[in-house]
Amino acid sequence: MRDLGPLVAPRSVAVIGASSNLSKSGGVLFKNIVEGGFAGPIHPINPRPGEILGRRTYATVSAVPEPVDLAFIVLPQAGVRAALEDCIRSRARAACIITGGFAEAGEDGKRLQHELRGLVREAGLLTIGPNTIGTVNAEIRLMGSFTPFPEWPAGPVSIFCQTGIFAGAAMVQFMSQAVQRFGIGKSIDAGNKVDVDELDFLRFAAGDPGTKIVGLHLEDIRDPDAFFPLADRVGREKPIVILKPGRTPLGAAAAAYHTASRPMDDGALDAAFRRHGLVRADDVEDFLGFLKAFAYLPAPKGRRIGVVTYSGALGVMAMDDVAGSGLAAARFSPSTLETVSKVVYGWQPLVNPLDMWAAIDAAGPRPAHEVPLDAALGDPEIDMVLALPLTPANADFPETREVFAKLRERHPDTPLAMVITGGAIRERWLRDIDGLGIPVYPTTRAAVRALAALAGWREHRDRA
Amino acid sequence: MRDLGPLVAPRSVAVIGASSNLSKSGGVLFKNIVEGGFAGPIHPINPRPGEILGRRTYATVSAVPEPVDLAFIVLPQAGVRAALEDCIRSRARAACIITGGFAEAGEDGKRLQHELRGLVREAGLLTIGPNTIGTVNAEIRLMGSFTPFPEWPAGPVSIFCQTGIFAGAAMVQFMSQAVQRFGIGKSIDAGNKVDVDELDFLRFAAGDPGTKIVGLHLEDIRDPDAFFPLADRVGREKPIVILKPGRTPLGAAAAAYHTASRPMDDGALDAAFRRHGLVRADDVEDFLGFLKAFAYLPAPKGRRIGVVTYSGALGVMAMDDVAGSGLAAARFSPSTLETVSKVVYGWQPLVNPLDMWAAIDAAGPRPAHEVPLDAALGDPEIDMVLALPLTPANADFPETREVFAKLRERHPDTPLAMVITGGAIRERWLRDIDGLGIPVYPTTRAAVRALAALAGWREHRDRA
Repeated sequence: MRDLGPLVAPRSVAVIGASSNLSKSGGVLFKNIVEGGFAGPIHPINPRPGEILGRRTYATVSAVPEPVDLAFIVLPQAGVRAALEDCIRSRARAACIITGGFAEAGEDGKRLQHELRGLVREAGLLTIGPNTIGTVNAEIRLMGSFTPFPEWPAGPVSIFCQTGIFAGAAMVQFMSQAVQRFGIGKSIDAGNKVDVDELDFLRFAAGDPGTKIVGLHLEDIRDPDAFFPLADRVGREKPIVILKPGRTPLGAAAAAYHTASRPMDDGALDAAFRRHGLVRADDVEDFLGFLKAFAYLPAPKGRRIGVVTYSGALGVMAMDDVAGSGLAAARFSPSTLETVSKVVYGWQPLVNPLDMWAAIDAAGPRPAHEVPLDAALGDPEIDMVLALPLTPANADFPETREVFAKLRERHPDTPLAMVITGGAIRERWLRDIDGLGIPVYPTTRAAVRALAALAGWREHRDRA
Repeated sequence: MRDLGPLVAPRSVAVIGASSNLSKSGGVLFKNIVEGGFAGPIHPINPRPGEILGRRTYATVSAVPEPVDLAFIVLPQAGVRAALEDCIRSRARAACIITGGFAEAGEDGKRLQHELRGLVREAGLLTIGPNTIGTVNAEIRLMGSFTPFPEWPAGPVSIFCQTGIFAGAAMVQFMSQAVQRFGIGKSIDAGNKVDVDELDFLRFAAGDPGTKIVGLHLEDIRDPDAFFPLADRVGREKPIVILKPGRTPLGAAAAAYHTASRPMDDGALDAAFRRHGLVRADDVEDFLGFLKAFAYLPAPKGRRIGVVTYSGALGVMAMDDVAGSGLAAARFSPSTLETVSKVVYGWQPLVNPLDMWAAIDAAGPRPAHEVPLDAALGDPEIDMVLALPLTPANADFPETREVFAKLRERHPDTPLAMVITGGAIRERWLRDIDGLGIPVYPTTRAAVRALAALAGWREHRDRA
C-alpha cells in the first residue's frame, strides 16, 4: 500500500511554472498557496531568476537546496515530461500535473499520458492529474488550487474528485454561505488519474483520523473488482457518498471527452453501489446535500419518516417524495397524537404528514412547533423527522434557537431535517439554528433524498 | 360563463371577522389588505362597534351603507353559514372563506361544505375556499392573504392554487430575492374549491389581458372532461404550468386530508397533461423554475440543446440531465466550431458540451464567454443554449452586463439559460445580468427541465 502522505499532506511544495503574472494559471496557483497560509517552504520554479511574491525562484526542482515533497506542474504540455523527470531526479515525492490536453484530447494525448504513467510508476513518484485544478488540505492550509478561497474550515468530510469544482467554484459557493456549511478537510482533484486513483485515496481515507465521511466524484472506476470490496469495507466505518455522472450514454460520451473516462454499464454500477452500501448522488446538489446529512445527523435506526408540516401542500409533496425514496411513511403512535391534540383545533385530522399550520392560530407559534416536534422526535414508531416550517410573522417566535437546541438535546439519536419557506424571518431562523446539527434543504425532494441516503447507509452497515 | 371580476378584481372589500388583535388570522388579513394599498373601500365586519386601523366596524355586511364586491370570511366554523347568508342578503358579489375544518376534516365537515355549496350556488355568490389563505391581485394592490408581503411586482404570471404558499410563504421567499424574480399579477388560493374552481379560473385567465402565463397548483381536477379541452385551448395562447401533487398513493392520501381531494390515476393524468400540452412540474422548485422560463424566454423552435460549459464535470452532468429530459444534444455546426477554435488551445476537443474552461487561459475571460456563446446562439443547428459559467477571479470580466445584453439582443429568438457557480463574483454576475431575460437555475437538472418544458409547450402549440 502506498502512503499518500507526501501528496495530501506535504511538508514542502514547489510550483513548476509559477508566474508573476497573477492572471495566468501558474500565477493564480502560486498566489493561492502563498496566501492560503501553508506553513512549509513554497518554492517558485521559473527559469527567470528573481522572486515571486517574495519567494526566490529556482530554474528546476533539482536546484532547490532542500527536499521538496510535492511539486505542482503548471506548464504548457510540451514541458511536462521534463518537469516530471526533474522531480524524479531531485527525489521529490509527489507531483500534481495541472496541465490539460492529455488523454482527454485525442490519440496523441492518450499516448503521451500513457508514457507519463510509465515514467512516474517506475520511479514511484506519486502523481495526480493531469488535467486537474489541484489539491487542497485545509488542515494544513494548503490551498493548492486555481481558485482563491474564502474562509474554508477544515472538517470531517474528505473529497476525491475528477473535477475542479470541488476544489474550486462549487466549494467557493458552498463556503461563501453564511449558514449550513460543513468542514472539508481534504479535496483532491485527480483529473485524468494518470497514477493516483480512487483506490489509493480510499486506503488513505480509511487510515486518516481527520476523515470521517468520504465524497467521491468519479467519471470512471479504474478497477471495479478492487474498488467495490474496498469501498464496502471503508464505507461501513466512514460513509461514502459517490457522484458518478455518465449515467446515460450522452453523459458517458461527454465524460470520455472530459477525463478520458471509459463508459461503464450504469445499471450494473448502480446495483453495485447499492449492494456495497455506497450512497449515490445524482448531481452536485445531491452530493453536497448528502454529505451535509452525514456531517450533521446521526443515522436513523430504520426507514420510518414522520413529516411535521406547516403547509398542507408541501406535506403532500413531501409524501410524494417519500414514496419515491424507499423510505416508509411512519404512523404516529397514539401517545404522540394525544400530545399533539392539545395544540390543535378539534376538527384537525391527525395523520402523517401532521399539518400544524392551524395550531399556530390555535396554540401560538412556539407550542405549535415545540410540542409536535418534541413528540415526533421521541416517538418510538418514528425513525426520522422532516419538518416543513413556514415563517410569516404570525408563525414566528423569538426563542427559535432555544427551542431547536432543546429538541436536538432531548432527541440526539433521531435525525431532524427541515425545509423552511419564507423571507427575512426565514433568514433569521437559519442563523438561529446554525450549528445545532439540523440540515436545512431547499426542497422537500432534496431533504427526503438526503434522509433516505442516511437510512440506506445504516441499513447496509447493520446488515454486516 | 361566470365573470370572476368581483372576486379577482373587486372594487370594494369587507373582512368578516376582522380583529384588532393583529396576531389572529382576522387581524393579520385585515392589516395586510389595508397596508397593501388597495384603493377601494375596506370594511371591517365585527360585532364590537368602533374602529380597526382607522376603519369603522359594522356588525354585518348588510349594515355597510355601500355595495361590497368581495367579503373575506375569517370566523370560527360555526359562524360561516350565517356570514354567507349575510353576504347573499346584502348582494355582495363574491366571498372568500378563509376558515378551515370543512371537507378536509371528516364527514361532518364534508356535509357542512356540501350545504354551503348549495347555498352559494343557488344564490350565485362567487365563492372561493373554504380552507384558503386568500387571494392576491397585485395589479390593484389587493394583498388579501395572511402574509405580509415585501414589494411584489405585478406581472405576466397568474397563479391558481390549492395552497396558501403561493399567496404566502413561498411567494414571500421568491419575492425577497434580489434577482431572478418575475412579476405575478394574481394569485388565488382556492382551498377546498366549494364553488370557484380551475375551470372558472381558466376561462377568466383566457380573457384577462394581464395574464400571459398561467400557473396551476391542483390537488384534484374537478371535471377532467371539461378541464382538458379548455386547458388545451387556453394553453396554446398562454402557457400553463401545472403542479399536481399526489403523484403517488402516499401523496394522494395526504391530499385527501389536505383539501379533501379525490385520488386520481396519476399515469392517466400525466398522459393527459402531455397530450394537451400542459407542462407538469413535480415540486415548488420546478413550478417557479418553469414559470420563470416562460416569463423570461422565447420558446425554442426545436429540441436541440447546445451546452457551453466552463466545468467539464458540470457539462457531463448536464448531458445526463439532457438525456433524461426529452431534449436532444445538438451538433454544433462547422462554422461554430471554426469560430470557437480561435479562442481555445489546439488540443481542445470541440464537442457538445463545449468545454471553454481552458479558453479563459488561452484567450482571456471575455472572449472565452462571448465568442462561443455568440456562435452557439446564432448556430442554425441549435435551438437553445445552456451556459455553465464558473466565476473564480480569473474567469471574471467587468463588462458582464454589456456582453450578455448584446448576446440577448443579437439572438432574441434563441433561449439562453444558465447555471453559475462561484462565490461573491457570482453574486455580481447575477446582479449584472438581472433584467436581461436570462434565467439562472440552481442546478443543471433544474435548468434542463425548464428548457425542456418550453420546448414541449411549443411543439404542442405548433402541432395544432
